[in-house]
Amino acid sequence: MSKKILYVVGIGPGSYEDMTLRAIYALEESDWIVGYTVYCDLVRPHFEDKEYISTPMMTEEKRVRMAFEKANEGHAVSLVCSGDAGVYGMAGLALSMRPEFLDVEVKVIPGVTAALSGASVLGAPLIHDFCLISLSDRLTPMELIEKRLRAASKADMALVLYNPESKSRSGYLAHACDVLLENIEPERVCGIVKNIAREGECKSVMTLSELKNADADMFSTVFIGNSTTKNINEFMVTARGYKSEG
Amino acid sequence: MSKKILYVVGIGPGSYEDMTLRAIYALEESDWIVGYTVYCDLVRPHFEDKEYISTPMMTEEKRVRMAFEKANEGHAVSLVCSGDAGVYGMAGLALSMRPEFLDVEVKVIPGVTAALSGASVLGAPLIHDFCLISLSDRLTPMELIEKRLRAASKADMALVLYNPESKSRSGYLAHACDVLLENIEPERVCGIVKNIAREGECKSVMTLSELKNADADMFSTVFIGNSTTKNINEFMVTARGYKSEG
Repeated sequence: MSKKILYVVGIGPGSYEDMTLRAIYALEESDWIVGYTVYCDLVRPHFEDKEYISTPMMTEEKRVRMAFEKANEGHAVSLVCSGDAGVYGMAGLALSMRPEFLDVEVKVIPGVTAALSGASVLGAPLIHDFCLISLSDRLTPMELIEKRLRAASKADMALVLYNPESKSRSGYLAHACDVLLENIEPERVCGIVKNIAREGECKSVMTLSELKNADADMFSTVFIGNSTTKNINEFMVTARGYKSEG
Repeated sequence: MSKKILYVVGIGPGSYEDMTLRAIYALEESDWIVGYTVYCDLVRPHFEDKEYISTPMMTEEKRVRMAFEKANEGHAVSLVCSGDAGVYGMAGLALSMRPEFLDVEVKVIPGVTAALSGASVLGAPLIHDFCLISLSDRLTPMELIEKRLRAASKADMALVLYNPESKSRSGYLAHACDVLLENIEPERVCGIVKNIAREGECKSVMTLSELKNADADMFSTVFIGNSTTKNINEFMVTARGYKSEG
């Protein structure tokens, strides 16, 4: 095989059914599949004849470089990302590194990010304008995260929060709720989805004040409604606008 | 057939390959497919044995009600939305109307919205926090749209703009650029994608001041980078954060 191609593939929330056909075709065409151990394990049962490089501990730069090097040897390689390849995924690093590997073609294949898959479980929280914000301060100063939370809430935009908590970052969701409560009423309709499209999927709809004390982990995605969002039979439903259709 | 089920299905940007397997299965299972004429025409070649209700002129409420009524007669029905079902899609209306049709089960099936598919064409503009804002003022006051544009730009969030222009709303993109230029430098890296995953797909990367005078239409999706976004070989690439990984 002499095709030097790197697919950066969003595999969606984790279930085979939530992959796009384009993502499936890319993985089928690939000789090598590269990714975090947990994402490799999600696709492996459906693509058993592939060679895998799964890297639990390495930095992302090293992983992307390994994928390029393998492609540069003359292989088709898929770098798998959970959700979408371009939302907190590897597409940016791959395109930044591409000038070092100009013989390798790079194709970004989009996928269903947790904002969309989580929203479909909760109902329709993001039917109108929204902001997607990660609470991880590993590469972003907390002051900027707080500024974005305030900006979104003052402009009445619905919010999706990625990475609300992890073992090393406990209390982050409660802190974010405190920042939001500066501008949003405590009764605002909110929701959490855990383990989207995987074993143990569950959702709960609650108020913003309840969200502050809710359990969340690194497999949780958090949604804060805008001022029009209602709890309809335990589904979060945001209005399509602020005027009536007439 | 006596299954009373309404699938609200995000079909992605329009190409069969960009549908998820779950969306394909829902359409295969359905007796009836309901949607805008243009979306019905996109799926019809792949699901030829279905009954279609395509409604070019009706309001969305009427279309959703027709889908419920057909499901309530004992059918499996798919209400198709371009992109995602829950981002400016029909999921919210369907869940709002469901209390009138409690015998009908509603399932929302997410899809790849234009923010993600467009981003994959342009590179990786949305790799970090971002806001999705529609420029349509049909159901939202322009003052609120402007407030959101200012909020996003002041908090250095990347932006995706849906519905930048249409025949009846010309000059909206230029106006939005003027609002953004209050807080963003004219050299900011921006991009437009047209006809994503359809005949005539094209992308262009440009500055914010060039964006102000660019051609856009109802099939265009517009991206504004954050302060870290670079033009790398005509791809928009946003950094994964503001700190180095060390």
